[in-house]
Amino acid sequence: MSPAAPMLVTEPAAIAALVGAARDRGRRVGFVPTMGALHEGHASLAAAAVEACDDVAVSIFVNPTQFGPHEDFQRYPRSLEADCRLLAARGVRWVFAPTVAAMYPPGNATRIVVEGPALPFEGALRPGHFSGVATVVHRLFRLVPADRAYFGAKDWQQTVVVRRMVADLGLPVTIVVLPTVREADGLALSSRNAYLSADERRRAVGLHAALVEADSGWSAGTPVETLEARMRRMIEAHGIAVDYASIVDPESLAPLQPAGPDTGSPGAGCDGPAESGAIALVAGRLGRTRLIDNRLLATRRPPGTT
Amino acid sequence: MSPAAPMLVTEPAAIAALVGAARDRGRRVGFVPTMGALHEGHASLAAAAVEACDDVAVSIFVNPTQFGPHEDFQRYPRSLEADCRLLAARGVRWVFAPTVAAMYPPGNATRIVVEGPALPFEGALRPGHFSGVATVVHRLFRLVPADRAYFGAKDWQQTVVVRRMVADLGLPVTIVVLPTVREADGLALSSRNAYLSADERRRAVGLHAALVEADSGWSAGTPVETLEARMRRMIEAHGIAVDYASIVDPESLAPLQPAGPDTGSPGAGCDGPAESGAIALVAGRLGRTRLIDNRLLATRRPPGTT
Repeated sequence: MSPAAPMLVTEPAAIAALVGAARDRGRRVGFVPTMGALHEGHASLAAAAVEACDDVAVSIFVNPTQFGPHEDFQRYPRSLEADCRLLAARGVRWVFAPTVAAMYPPGNATRIVVEGPALPFEGALRPGHFSGVATVVHRLFRLVPADRAYFGAKDWQQTVVVRRMVADLGLPVTIVVLPTVREADGLALSSRNAYLSADERRRAVGLHAALVEADSGWSAGTPVETLEARMRRMIEAHGIAVDYASIVDPESLAPLQPAGPDTGSPGAGCDGPAESGAIALVAGRLGRTRLIDNRLLATRRPPGTT
Repeated sequence: MSPAAPMLVTEPAAIAALVGAARDRGRRVGFVPTMGALHEGHASLAAAAVEACDDVAVSIFVNPTQFGPHEDFQRYPRSLEADCRLLAARGVRWVFAPTVAAMYPPGNATRIVVEGPALPFEGALRPGHFSGVATVVHRLFRLVPADRAYFGAKDWQQTVVVRRMVADLGLPVTIVVLPTVREADGLALSSRNAYLSADERRRAVGLHAALVEADSGWSAGTPVETLEARMRRMIEAHGIAVDYASIVDPESLAPLQPAGPDTGSPGAGCDGPAESGAIALVAGRLGRTRLIDNRLLATRRPPGTT
């Protein structure tokens, strides 16, 4: 038996009423905000939401306010019918696909601005991007008052910014971040991979290869600066123009703090204390296509041990 | 019998629990956010809240993020004991007076930014002011989940910005705006009036005098530009340096639209259609003290009638 197609809802008031009524009946609601052009990464979020919740809503909205004036808003892939089929197979109940006019009614003038972890990396390269993300996610959370909202780790900085906003504004939702889904060669799934030519697609693996290399060097205690330079060289060797290739604190996205002399930890004086956790973030351009990826780094071997 | 003193609450979690519990018991909660140094204007807001609601909370918080680096945050008057006495006499139940550290915990990085009506006038002269106001009001509304929140019309643009934010973010609170309370000579009550020397205090009436003059000219059909120039001259004649003296739409704070040729209204071609409503906004400086005031203008006589 083929699964039931999700109900396609375009009116904000309608999705709010449907989800609100489910919550009022005591049902646990999961929510997956997306820009459509769904792939197996999105499908894994929807499947996890269906597993953990009674009813799941997926939004499909290519949000203009998170694109810069020279970015790919117009050509961003749209595939609503295929998206709905994919979500039906995962047991999603509602697909919320509003128009831009419905999401931004005339006269609206309020934005959410996150600073701190939103400032470096994508925030620096895409001015206004995270304000657009935070604002639309806030609006979606209001329309879809879910218990749990699901985001993919591929857009790591986005997950940090959303969690920061949720904490600061006291929004009543739990943010769940799930691992990046990858192609066989390691390329992170992204709707933007569709832009790549066959040659670009082959070279795109350079981002993941650099992350794997960094992870290995991190475990071996190689200094951060060495690893960052190595990532940069590997990415460039694949014909990718590097935007950044950095190892930072996974929550603040600030440079790792060397352990102070008073900590007494074996990592004192090294680039990152063994316990702290770190993430490698990379971004680069292949032709007109911009790709990002990241990897949480494994436990670091204290320097001076073998 | 003297009225009961309000409960003084400094912990955000405590006020949230108290107000939340009252709401859960079905009580209607009113809220008056203030920066303290309370005067009869604040007292009128508290009295109206007590009249309309079961329980009333007043916050007293001199919010640093709405002051510019060269503004009067440090010298802004603080008078918590006198404030509590004034509120006791009005039947207020809770006074919420948090510390700056409690309102802005380490790591918080999210601001609310309102554009549109927040951009001109105070928004242009005090960069970041309305973002500070919107952010702290949003935070206060979360801690004090009231049915109704009360603001004075003296800070007209602030009331527009707060109502804009409440609408855009879908906050579940009704905003009530009450008339400005004035001294016998017309000076609007303001905590900053305490800064004025005796001579400045005498001359401060120039703002109100200009508004009264504008209202009278508006009723008579005098063109907006004439009225704005007249207000400016009157304010300057009182030795007040004018920041602005403008007549605009009360909701958008944009210049009034001349009625188009297709409206057929008697006001066609004049400075503001008879039906539209208008507000005069003034701001000026007496020595180091900056004062603002405003007046909603009466119905305009159609031009060409007598």
